[in-house]
Amino acid sequence: MIENVIAHIDKQKESYVERLCDFLRIQSISTDPKKKSEMQKGAECVLNLFNECGMEAQIVETAGHASVIADTGPVDGGGATVLIYGHYDVQPTGDLSLWESPPFEPTIRDGAIFARGSADDKGQVFAHMLAIEAWKKAATRLPIRVKFLVEGEEEIGSANLETVVREHKDRLACDYVVLSDTPKFDMETPAITYGTKGLVYKEIVVSGPKHNLHSGSFGGTITNPGNALSQIVASLKDDDNRVTIPGYYDDVVAISDEEKEKMAALPFDEDAYRKEMGVTALTGEKGFTTLERRWARPTLDVNGMHGGFTDPGSSTVIPSRVMAKVSMRIVPNQDPVKIGELFDKAVLAAAPEGVRVEVIHHASAGAYVSPLGTPGIRAAAEALKLGFGKEPFFIREGGTLPILPMFKEVLGAESLMMGLCMPNCNAHGPNEFFHVSDLHNGTRAAAFFVDQLSKA
Amino acid sequence: MIENVIAHIDKQKESYVERLCDFLRIQSISTDPKKKSEMQKGAECVLNLFNECGMEAQIVETAGHASVIADTGPVDGGGATVLIYGHYDVQPTGDLSLWESPPFEPTIRDGAIFARGSADDKGQVFAHMLAIEAWKKAATRLPIRVKFLVEGEEEIGSANLETVVREHKDRLACDYVVLSDTPKFDMETPAITYGTKGLVYKEIVVSGPKHNLHSGSFGGTITNPGNALSQIVASLKDDDNRVTIPGYYDDVVAISDEEKEKMAALPFDEDAYRKEMGVTALTGEKGFTTLERRWARPTLDVNGMHGGFTDPGSSTVIPSRVMAKVSMRIVPNQDPVKIGELFDKAVLAAAPEGVRVEVIHHASAGAYVSPLGTPGIRAAAEALKLGFGKEPFFIREGGTLPILPMFKEVLGAESLMMGLCMPNCNAHGPNEFFHVSDLHNGTRAAAFFVDQLSKA
Repeated sequence: MIENVIAHIDKQKESYVERLCDFLRIQSISTDPKKKSEMQKGAECVLNLFNECGMEAQIVETAGHASVIADTGPVDGGGATVLIYGHYDVQPTGDLSLWESPPFEPTIRDGAIFARGSADDKGQVFAHMLAIEAWKKAATRLPIRVKFLVEGEEEIGSANLETVVREHKDRLACDYVVLSDTPKFDMETPAITYGTKGLVYKEIVVSGPKHNLHSGSFGGTITNPGNALSQIVASLKDDDNRVTIPGYYDDVVAISDEEKEKMAALPFDEDAYRKEMGVTALTGEKGFTTLERRWARPTLDVNGMHGGFTDPGSSTVIPSRVMAKVSMRIVPNQDPVKIGELFDKAVLAAAPEGVRVEVIHHASAGAYVSPLGTPGIRAAAEALKLGFGKEPFFIREGGTLPILPMFKEVLGAESLMMGLCMPNCNAHGPNEFFHVSDLHNGTRAAAFFVDQLSKA
Repeated sequence: MIENVIAHIDKQKESYVERLCDFLRIQSISTDPKKKSEMQKGAECVLNLFNECGMEAQIVETAGHASVIADTGPVDGGGATVLIYGHYDVQPTGDLSLWESPPFEPTIRDGAIFARGSADDKGQVFAHMLAIEAWKKAATRLPIRVKFLVEGEEEIGSANLETVVREHKDRLACDYVVLSDTPKFDMETPAITYGTKGLVYKEIVVSGPKHNLHSGSFGGTITNPGNALSQIVASLKDDDNRVTIPGYYDDVVAISDEEKEKMAALPFDEDAYRKEMGVTALTGEKGFTTLERRWARPTLDVNGMHGGFTDPGSSTVIPSRVMAKVSMRIVPNQDPVKIGELFDKAVLAAAPEGVRVEVIHHASAGAYVSPLGTPGIRAAAEALKLGFGKEPFFIREGGTLPILPMFKEVLGAESLMMGLCMPNCNAHGPNEFFHVSDLHNGTRAAAFFVDQLSKA
C-alpha cells in the first residue's frame, strides 16, 4: 500500500506547492490585533484543507484565536493513535524592506518557497495533512488513527492551548504527539529533536537611595545599587562557569555515556558555529562539550540590565534603582518551581548590606525529553530516513516548548519532533523559506511514518 | 576703619536685597541656547554692578559665554592680593510647576529670597562685591587689592575658563582665590570647605555575539556580556568595600589623626543623613567613618548600566552588548591619569574569555585640598566668625571642582571656599533660596575678610 501512497505524493509535487502557497497568502499574524479577520481566515483555511484531505474537522473557539481539530476516525482492529500538532499563526514580518519578496506573496527562488510561515509552521504541518490525503486517495485504508490539533497562538505563547487540550482530552487522546516545528540538522540531514530545556525567568531589582544621588557628595557612604547588582549577578556563577546557587544541580540527570558518544559523533562544526555568532571563543560550564552544554546542561544568563544614567556622555549619579533580567534554562528532572525558589534564596543571600533586593518572577516551564526506545520514535526515525533518503540525527534543543510537558501531563503521550525544514530557514526573520524538496520529502516521510507506526 | 564698613553694611541690608533681586531677574541659563541674550544681559549686569561698587571692570569674550574681570587696583605698600571667583550663569529651572514662586521673579518668604541663582551663585558672589563697595564708601582706603573673575559657564563645565585665566594670567595674579560657591555646615554655622575630590569617569563596554541571540538555543555555549560585565564590575571592589584595582591606593595620603579628630568632633547626625537618603544602612570602605569616606577616601561607583532586553516583561535574549558607566572620586595626590590607566588595566584583566571589552574615557579631574595653616585660611575663618557670629566648621566635599587645581597650576594660588548659603538651598532644584540674613552676614564676613587678610 505504501508504494501507492508514495507514488501518489511524487506525482503531486507541483500541486502541493500551489496549495501551500494559498495557505501562505493568509496574513495570520497572531500578535497583531489588526489581523483578527486574517486569523479567522487562517482557521477556516485549515478546516477546508482538512476537508480536502478527507478528514472530519472542527474549529474550536478559544478566549484568543481558534484551534482546529481533525480526526481520521477509528481504525478496524485498533492500533496506535497519533495526534499531529501544528500551528497556523505566524510571526510578524518585521521590517518589510528586508524581504526580497513580499512575505505574504509566496515566491519560488532557488528551489525554495519564500513566505512568512512557510517553514514555521504552515509548510511543515501541511506536509502531514498531505500525507494523510495521499493515504486516503491511494490506499485502501489508513492503517492507524490520525488526529490533528492546529492552533493559532503558538507565536504568542499558546495561552489557550492547555484549555483546549483539557476540554477535548478524550477527542485528542493518543499514543504519541507528533510535531514538525523544529528544523533538520543540516541541508541533507533530517533530525529528530528528542529534548528541550525548561525555563525559569526572573528579574532582580536592587533599590538604594530614594532618588538618584550625586556620586561625589554621597559616594562612599552608601551601597551603590549598580555595584550591588553586579555583585549579586556575578555571585551566581563561578570561574568554571558553573551555577553556584546551592542545590541547583541536585536533580540534574547526568548525560549518559551513550548519549555523550552520540553527541560527539555528530558532525558539528564548532568553528563555523563560533564564527556565525561572531564571538572570540566558545565558553561554558567546565567539563562539558559545546553540544552537551547547549542541549543538556542547565544554564544561567543575563537577558537585560538597566539603571542610572544611560544616555551618551557622563552624569555622576548613584542610581536609585537598578535591575537585571536573569533566566535559567533547566534540564529534565529539574523542577522549575524549586529552581525558582533556590534562585530567589541565593539572590537574597548575596545582597550586600544597605540595599533592598526584590526578585520578580516572570515565567517558568519544565524541560522535556522523549524516551528514545519507543516504537513511535523508531517509526519516526525510519520514516525520515525513507522520506529524505538519509538517516536522521537525534538532537536536542536549548529552547523551551512548554506544550511538550503539558501534552505529557494531560494526554499522557510522549512527543515526537520530526524536523523537516532547514536550520537556517529564517523562521522569525525576513526571507523565511521552506525548500520545495523538503515539502516533498517531508510529505513522503509523514506518509512513511503512518506505515512504519502501523507495523511497529 | 572696619567698624565704619560694617556699620555701612548694616544700614544697607534692605537695599542690598533689592539690588540682588535685579540681578536675579536675569534668566542667565548658560545651557539654554534660547537664553543667549539673557546671558549677555547677565555679563553686562555684572559689569554695571562692579562699576556701581566703584571697581574697574571689563567683559572678556570667550568661545562660549563671556566672563567679567574686575580689579580694585594696586594698594600702597603692597600687601596681599585676592581673586574672588564666582559665576553669573544659573541652572535651568526644571519643572516650573514645582516652584512656589516663579524662578526669575525673586520673592521673599520666611526671611529668604526665592529665585534661581539666589544661592548658586549670584547671591554669594554679590556679597563679596557689596563688601568691596562698603569698603570703598565707608573707609578711607581698601587695605588689600581685590580682583574678581565672574564667569558664565560654571553650570556647563567651565569649558573656557582655563583659557581666560591663562590669557589674563598677569591681570588675575593673586595670593589666594576666594570662592563662595559652597554651603554652610548647617543653619547657624558657616563653613570653610578645604578639600574636594577629583573624578575619573569611564564606561565599560562588553561585546559578545554580533547580535542578540536566543538564550535557549545558544545559552551555555558563549560568554554572556551581561554576566561578564557583572563579573568585571564586581571584581573592582572587595567585601570590605575597598577598591581592588592594583595600585589604586598607592598615592593616597592617609588622613592625619588630627584631621580624623576634627571630623569626629563635627556634629554630624548619621541617622538623619541615612534617613534623608532613604537607605537601610550607611556602608563603605571598612575602617573609616562616614565623614572620612565621604570627604577623604577614594570611591568607585556605578553611574549607569544598560543592555539587552529592558522593557517590561520577559524576552529570552543573550545581549550582544552591555555597558556600565563607572566613576571614581579620587583624593589629593592620586593622579587622575594614572588612576584611569590602572582602572583600564584592571577591567581588561578581569574580562572573561569570549567577550571583547572596551573602556571609554569620559572625564577626569584632580582633587584639591587647601593647606590649613595659611594666613589666608585663618583670615577667612576669622572673617566668617565675625560675620556670622559663630566659628565656622572646616569641612571637605566629595564632589569635584576642576577649577581649583587649575587655579593652583596657572596662578599658583590656593583657594579659600567660604560657604555663605544653606546646605539645603535647593541649588539645582526647584525653590532655590538664599536667606536675607546670609546675604547680610555674608557681606559682613566678606568685608571682615579684607580687614583680616590685611592684618595677617
